[in-house]
This record gives sequence, structure tokens and C-alpha cells, in this order.
Amino acid sequence: MKVPFDEAVRRVALQLEAAGASEAQAVSTALALVRAEAQGIGSHGLSRVTQYASHLRNGRVDGEAEAVIAREHGAVLLVDARDGFAFPACELAVERGSQLAKKFGVCFAGVTNSHHAGVLVDHLRPAAKAGLVGLAFANSPSAMPAAGGKRAIFGTNPIAAVFPRKDHDALMIDLALSETARGKIAVAAKKGEPIPLGWALDSEGRPTTDAKAALAGSMLPIAGAKGAMLALIVEILVTALTGAHIGSEASSFFEDEGNRPRIGQAFILVNPGALSGNDVYNERIEALIAAMLVDDGVRLPGERRLALERRAREEGIELPPGL
Amino acid sequence: MKVPFDEAVRRVALQLEAAGASEAQAVSTALALVRAEAQGIGSHGLSRVTQYASHLRNGRVDGEAEAVIAREHGAVLLVDARDGFAFPACELAVERGSQLAKKFGVCFAGVTNSHHAGVLVDHLRPAAKAGLVGLAFANSPSAMPAAGGKRAIFGTNPIAAVFPRKDHDALMIDLALSETARGKIAVAAKKGEPIPLGWALDSEGRPTTDAKAALAGSMLPIAGAKGAMLALIVEILVTALTGAHIGSEASSFFEDEGNRPRIGQAFILVNPGALSGNDVYNERIEALIAAMLVDDGVRLPGERRLALERRAREEGIELPPGL
Repeated sequence: MKVPFDEAVRRVALQLEAAGASEAQAVSTALALVRAEAQGIGSHGLSRVTQYASHLRNGRVDGEAEAVIAREHGAVLLVDARDGFAFPACELAVERGSQLAKKFGVCFAGVTNSHHAGVLVDHLRPAAKAGLVGLAFANSPSAMPAAGGKRAIFGTNPIAAVFPRKDHDALMIDLALSETARGKIAVAAKKGEPIPLGWALDSEGRPTTDAKAALAGSMLPIAGAKGAMLALIVEILVTALTGAHIGSEASSFFEDEGNRPRIGQAFILVNPGALSGNDVYNERIEALIAAMLVDDGVRLPGERRLALERRAREEGIELPPGL
Repeated sequence: MKVPFDEAVRRVALQLEAAGASEAQAVSTALALVRAEAQGIGSHGLSRVTQYASHLRNGRVDGEAEAVIAREHGAVLLVDARDGFAFPACELAVERGSQLAKKFGVCFAGVTNSHHAGVLVDHLRPAAKAGLVGLAFANSPSAMPAAGGKRAIFGTNPIAAVFPRKDHDALMIDLALSETARGKIAVAAKKGEPIPLGWALDSEGRPTTDAKAALAGSMLPIAGAKGAMLALIVEILVTALTGAHIGSEASSFFEDEGNRPRIGQAFILVNPGALSGNDVYNERIEALIAAMLVDDGVRLPGERRLALERRAREEGIELPPGL
């Protein structure tokens, strides 16, 4: 059944409230999940409602928590999510961070004691709207080994970026540092099909094509040691600079039971007006995009997701049974 | 023949001065090249002296230029390398940027009208020494296509990071976003050997195993579309925010003739003391490293290079004939 976008948000919010979330946490989180669904990112959309509700019920998320700015100094700030959902905390970090970036030219905004970041790039939308360049980083419960390692340590540690454009949608980039999504391995395991070599290690740290063994083992980062090094960069940025848990200290999101994950997110916001200036920024980014689009096969990042979201906002959101 | 480290720097500097570099540019550049050689990074070491000298002689680098802070606002600054070598300009950016990061908690320092960045992570050494976390980005003449594209647009666009540790060497991460180094393709072409599929495209944008065709075509980014997206992030950060040339506007470094490349570099420096605090930062990074080192196969990034450098500083540097 399809319902209007706002109605979908209202229903998801009610379900989260019924599981113990405050209205503020429920609305912010519901909007994020429905927007992910609208963009065609099912893995971070309505399929998460049941999981999030069970985390509320089992105390893995504190539904009553209110995110606060725990520290602010010059052009940096630290938001404490206080074991609530990530969405209100990241919203606060990017909102206040955008003010600081406007004032100082740049801001580093960290988030600690947080939960699943969802679609990472979406947190940066308000920054892009304010004309800021934004980078985002997040860790997650351990899923991938370090370079040369056999046991999972890092999360899949996504990197995201927004680059605003004059008279066009911002470029929106969002990528996990794992070679594949866990969901794809789970599907193969269910079907009893093999997975390609290079996706995962088994629990002994050996490369495997057995999907079930992979689920019990660890996922491989993109590009071998290079991806592992990128994951290390993300892991340190969002934990050592914020005080958050490293991936191996957080229980899996895919389990109903477990600890409060207390992972971290970080945002770096930059004001082009304070550096090259807005005119130069706009000219340079359009020159680059024009060069990219000479090749027919090139699509701009975010284009497809935003088109899907626009359609869903017009035509409504398909709700799964139970909502 | 082996000569002491400082003697190697002196000889390289003299050669660059003979080709038209000021003493300041020659010394800064010579130190960077000798240090790369000492770390076992021959591709960015003494093999570049002849190339750099020819760029001076052909006017691709202005040996008399003096890098200046073109703009400073709050916690951001922009250095104009004025078509000189990258090294003095990046030194200025990181030096002044570190002061701003100490004051404001974070700094974004861009460099425009620049040249080959050399070993990117080495520019961050003074930041790590000052107890700052540092990220670095650089573009280079076009070598890799955009996602879905056939023609080279982006440079190999390295990303680097330093994370200082108490009582230990800083972690030093440095990786180009190309699947392989151009030098490896050149070696295969010389030997008439094939290259693995996935390294490069030919001039028509078709995947190729022919090393000569690859040299005439483009190199592939790591991890397919994900690597291309990371290269896009780097390209925009160092051009749109600084005013520098995009990769496709700069002539190849491997040619003696060509334009002044005018590419860009960018540094983001963060003061842990202003965020989680130095104690939390140190505890978190050591907890992460301890978790990584449980696996025998894991080596910390930078360890090997620094060990090689220490040995070279004791035993001397092997000079190629002509120096």
C-alpha cells in the first residue's frame, strides 16, 4: 500500500514512540528512514524500523535521551548523543557546525555515544543548502579486519561528501569501505549460493566463497590494504577525536540484544566563500563537471537517488505490512 | 656511492639551483626528495631530480617564486605557490595551519598554483609533531576516468593522514587512489609483458592488458566506482576550494614540456585537545592499535618507511650517477 511521504513518517514515528522513543527522537529518526526508503536505499529504510524498535525496547538505545553540545571551542564542537538515536545528534552537530563554518571558514563537529548513522550523506543536506562543502565519516560495529589481519575490527566505515552547486542539486557522494554490503552476503547464504572471492574471510581469517562462513567471519575492505587504511582513518577520526567506541567494542546492529553501541560520527564543513570565494568555487566545480559529462556513461553522484526521492514524494511510499 | 643524508640534500639542492631554483625552493625540494629516497619510495625520490630540473629549465616551474598566504579568514587559509615547487608552499600551509588549528581546534589550509606534491604524508610531519591529527589531499595531471567514463580526468589523487601517538611514532597513512602506480605499467611496457585486467583502459576507454596501450590510455581507480568517487572528492577539495587547475587542465609531470600545472593541495588539521581531549584521544588510539596488533600479520602504517629512513640517515643515501 502506498501512502504519502509525510504519512509514512508519521506512522514510523508512532511505531518508534510506542517502543519508547521521545517524540523528538522518533520524528527525526522516522524522517531519515522514510527518506532512505524514498531514495531506493531499502537497506537503510523501512527494513530498519523493527530493528530500531527492538533496540529501544532492549535498552540498546535510550529513547528519552536528548543530544547536547558537550563541548565547543573555536571552530570545533562535540555532540553527545547520550545513547539516543544518531539522527537528532547528527542534526545538532551539522546545524551548529554550519554556523561555525560560516563564521570561521571550517568546522569539525564530532558525535559520540551514538548509534547507526543511516544514510550518512543525508546528514550533510542542511550544510549543502547553506552553501557549505561537507565531509562525513562514521564507524559501526566491527565488520572488517585491519590490513594483514584476520579478525574484524573496523566497521564498514562510510565516507560521504556534499558539494553544493549553483542552480543545480548538490553532488552527493556516499560509500561504505567494504567490498560489498552485508545484506548481499546474507541473501547468498539464504539461497545457498557462493559469493565471489574477495568479499569476505571466514572465522579463521581465510578467504572464502561460502556465504554462511562469511557471515560468521569478516567482510573485506575495498581495494585490499588501501581500503583498510581508509577504514583506519575513519575509525580514528570518529573515535579518538570524539571519545566514541571503536567498532570492536560495539555489539552488532543486526542483533536485538547487546550493548549500547556508543559509536561515533564526524563532520567537516568548509565555507568556499572564505577560501577561493564563491565565484571561483562555482566556476571550478562546473568546469570539472563539464569535463566529466563529455563521456556519455558518466552520471553525477546523488542524481539517481534524488530523482527517486522526488518521485516518491509525489507518488507516495510503499509501506511494508505492519506499518 | 653512499653519502650522508645531509650531503645528499646539499647535492640535490645544488642541481636544482643550477637549473634555476632559488636557494629556499631548492633546499625544501631537495630535502623532500632525499627523504622519499631514504624511505624506500624511489618513485618520488632521486629519480625525480632530472624531471624537476627540466621543469625549471622549461619554465614549467618558476624557480624564483616565493609562496605566500594569499588569504586567511578565521580557521582557513589559502597559500599561493605562485608556480613554484609544491614543497615550500605546503610547508607554509601546514606551518600556519598548525597555528590556526591550535587556536581554533581545526584548520583547512589550501594550496593553489602548485606542482607535484611528492610523498603527500610527509607534508603532515610538522602537524603530527605539534600533536595534531592531519589529513592531506592532492590532485595531479589527469590519469583516471570518472565513474562510467572512458577518458582520464582526475589525477591519481592521493589521500594521506597522520595520527600522533604518545611515546610512539605517529601513524602515517598515504595512498594513491589508482589501482596501481604508473611506474609499474611503464616497467611492464618496457619488458613487453602484459598487465592484469583492472589496472588500466586503452585510449578508447576499453579495459586492456596491453601495457603500451595502457600508457596511451588511462589508469583505473581502486575499487571501481567507489575509488572514482573518492578521487572526485579529492579533486573538488583541492581545486574548487583553492582555485587550482583540475587534472585535465594540467600537462603531465612525465613530460619535460608543457604548461605550469597549477594543481592543488589541501590540508585539514585537527587539535584533539579541543575535542575529546588529549587523554581520551591517547587512550582511544592505543585501544584501537592494541586491538589491531592482536593479529600477527598487522603492521602499523608508516612503520616500515620510518625504519628505512632511520637506517638511511645512519648509513647514508645511495646516489645515482650524476649527483
